[in-house]
Amino acid sequence: MNPQDFSPEHFSWHFEDGVGTVTLNRPDRKNPLTFESYAELRDTFRALVYAPAVKAIVVTGAGGNFSSGGDVHEIIGPLTKMAMPELLAFTRMTGDLVKAMRGCPQPIIAAIDGICVGAGAIMAMASDMRLATPATKTAFLFTRVGLAGCDMGACAILPRIIGQGRASDLLYTGRMMSAEEGERWGFHNRLFASEDLLEEAMGLARSIAAGPTFAHGITKTQLGIEWAVSVETAIEMEAQAQAICMATNDFRRAFEAFAEKRTPEFKGD
Amino acid sequence: MNPQDFSPEHFSWHFEDGVGTVTLNRPDRKNPLTFESYAELRDTFRALVYAPAVKAIVVTGAGGNFSSGGDVHEIIGPLTKMAMPELLAFTRMTGDLVKAMRGCPQPIIAAIDGICVGAGAIMAMASDMRLATPATKTAFLFTRVGLAGCDMGACAILPRIIGQGRASDLLYTGRMMSAEEGERWGFHNRLFASEDLLEEAMGLARSIAAGPTFAHGITKTQLGIEWAVSVETAIEMEAQAQAICMATNDFRRAFEAFAEKRTPEFKGD
Amino acid sequence: MNPQDFSPEHFSWHFEDGVGTVTLNRPDRKNPLTFESYAELRDTFRALVYAPAVKAIVVTGAGGNFSSGGDVHEIIGPLTKMAMPELLAFTRMTGDLVKAMRGCPQPIIAAIDGICVGAGAIMAMASDMRLATPATKTAFLFTRVGLAGCDMGACAILPRIIGQGRASDLLYTGRMMSAEEGERWGFHNRLFASEDLLEEAMGLARSIAAGPTFAHGITKTQLGIEWAVSVETAIEMEAQAQAICMATNDFRRAFEAFAEKRTPEFKGD
Repeated sequence: MNPQDFSPEHFSWHFEDGVGTVTLNRPDRKNPLTFESYAELRDTFRALVYAPAVKAIVVTGAGGNFSSGGDVHEIIGPLTKMAMPELLAFTRMTGDLVKAMRGCPQPIIAAIDGICVGAGAIMAMASDMRLATPATKTAFLFTRVGLAGCDMGACAILPRIIGQGRASDLLYTGRMMSAEEGERWGFHNRLFASEDLLEEAMGLARSIAAGPTFAHGITKTQLGIEWAVSVETAIEMEAQAQAICMATNDFRRAFEAFAEKRTPEFKGD
Repeated sequence: MNPQDFSPEHFSWHFEDGVGTVTLNRPDRKNPLTFESYAELRDTFRALVYAPAVKAIVVTGAGGNFSSGGDVHEIIGPLTKMAMPELLAFTRMTGDLVKAMRGCPQPIIAAIDGICVGAGAIMAMASDMRLATPATKTAFLFTRVGLAGCDMGACAILPRIIGQGRASDLLYTGRMMSAEEGERWGFHNRLFASEDLLEEAMGLARSIAAGPTFAHGITKTQLGIEWAVSVETAIEMEAQAQAICMATNDFRRAFEAFAEKRTPEFKGD
Repeated sequence: MNPQDFSPEHFSWHFEDGVGTVTLNRPDRKNPLTFESYAELRDTFRALVYAPAVKAIVVTGAGGNFSSGGDVHEIIGPLTKMAMPELLAFTRMTGDLVKAMRGCPQPIIAAIDGICVGAGAIMAMASDMRLATPATKTAFLFTRVGLAGCDMGACAILPRIIGQGRASDLLYTGRMMSAEEGERWGFHNRLFASEDLLEEAMGLARSIAAGPTFAHGITKTQLGIEWAVSVETAIEMEAQAQAICMATNDFRRAFEAFAEKRTPEFKGD
């Protein structure tokens, strides 16, 4: 993947200052996901593992909404006619998008305005941080289409972000979580006015991109793999992971800068 | 179990609109639990696995309180005289109640007013959602009777609902959590006036019972079994679990209703 | 370890009413940690396993700050010159401090004012409860020195206290968490005025020390080891752990006191 030339078919891509921006871009339909956009998003996040020039990712939606999720006609209709092997191939493909988002080393910042539902809510959940606006409405509405709340990791990931009780409420009822609830519950990290949202997300992404990006990738890895291990095991895992980071040039650069009362300049090596 | 005719000895049961209501009903003593009521509750939640007509459960207490927990004279006194095999048989029996509450497919809504302490607080914690009133007082007061906070799963479940630091506070000190704290911390999903509590809980239960109940049961299963697995494993588990739900009639019904701009009618198959 | 005579070299120790107080005590430098103080703290928490007279611990800092963390010149400088085996020995030693804090049976209350950053924030995180003041500023600023957020267990422990989204924010950016955020997010259990902080922490520690301390130690053990097991396994673990506590004299004493309408006196056996 060459981040400068990358031009995906099913979403927009912009690359500047080390930050790649993914924009779900079908605003007339509130940016739904289709079979094709799922697959292309999955392939993009997978390719980011090998794109060291990209140091942080912003995911957003065009036209004042984040995403309306899987399109009823383009996705749900066909699914009702599939045999089990095809159904499982589909749920595995959508799950692979979340795995790819968690598997790339770049921290992902979701910039969320307006509607953020279904698979759109999942993409927000699978991001590392979430910035939103007072108008953001988030719903895991799988139950509304006759499905379970366990879509693409939601029963495992959402309780870790907002707690088991609140996650149960959202997943059983499919109800809207207001922006105010989302901030209060730890789903949204911060709320901004709609007109400031994207620039705030870009600013956060740029500041992360200007940091020790190799170490950020290790942080992301550890935030994922320490999920289901004992405290003792997690501490040994971190002893090893942090020892790796102490052998980087960025760590040396930081010390030299502090010793000389300069701001450190990180290069990600 | 026939939900229409079921008439338990140690609590009240009401069944209507697919919703089974369990009322701890010894209001003069604030609805304590006894050896017998523990066992009957455990057997009831176990039987609910095979009672598909029951689609959601409300657990509440009579007379303005939820439950005062294990009765001091009827439970704690005898325990102080037991040999170890009997003690372990008792703690396993109480733990089996929580396992049974987590193991039945019906989402459980606790409607909690007034006193909610000891094993009563555990039953609230073991429910899927908790509605309360401004007067609700919740305490995990095992430490007050010389015991550890690790009762019936509390050291594992409570931190997942309100976080490790707040759970530590409640479990080491046995202090009262106010209703306002409970809502702010994610223990209580919502607070209502006492006179509205039960109807709000019934309304929520009815709306869940009118949903895709087979899928709700899968949501509940996944919310439990994805607890201690890796993110990758959880995502594969959900790919399989959701593929099962996509093969249900409820999923098809939902699509057909959406296509015809009708509200879907779910039947749980 | 004799808690009366214990006089550590690299921090202050005070023992009274069953409560041991650890004071990081180099206020001119905001109480940094050095190789020597890490090691002595680790050894102290390890020795507490065999010091039953010590029933609760308060950790605090002298001079209005908690701790500035690993000293830039005394720790970070030397680390930039070490070979990998030495680096891993260092990260394992610091991790061993957290293991020792989680491994001693005494509940640990951090009394946190002013600056609480780097390894200081980790010591606060590794405590069981955290009391703070409106002036407390907490930052996991490893990223600022070119390192990953996965230091001494932070990627595993912090998300369990404040949730995955908020932990990600703090660990990727290294930003300050205000006292108000800390309380709202469940990191700080309560805020007090600076002049009241230590006495409030001592009061909480004394009340815990006056409780069933054997059972408190079991609560602490279970809060740790139930971290990454299934709900079913956790419930069986608690059935066994609580049965042990039901065989203690403290449990019998509590019942006898309740029967005689006295306040129970616990002795930790």
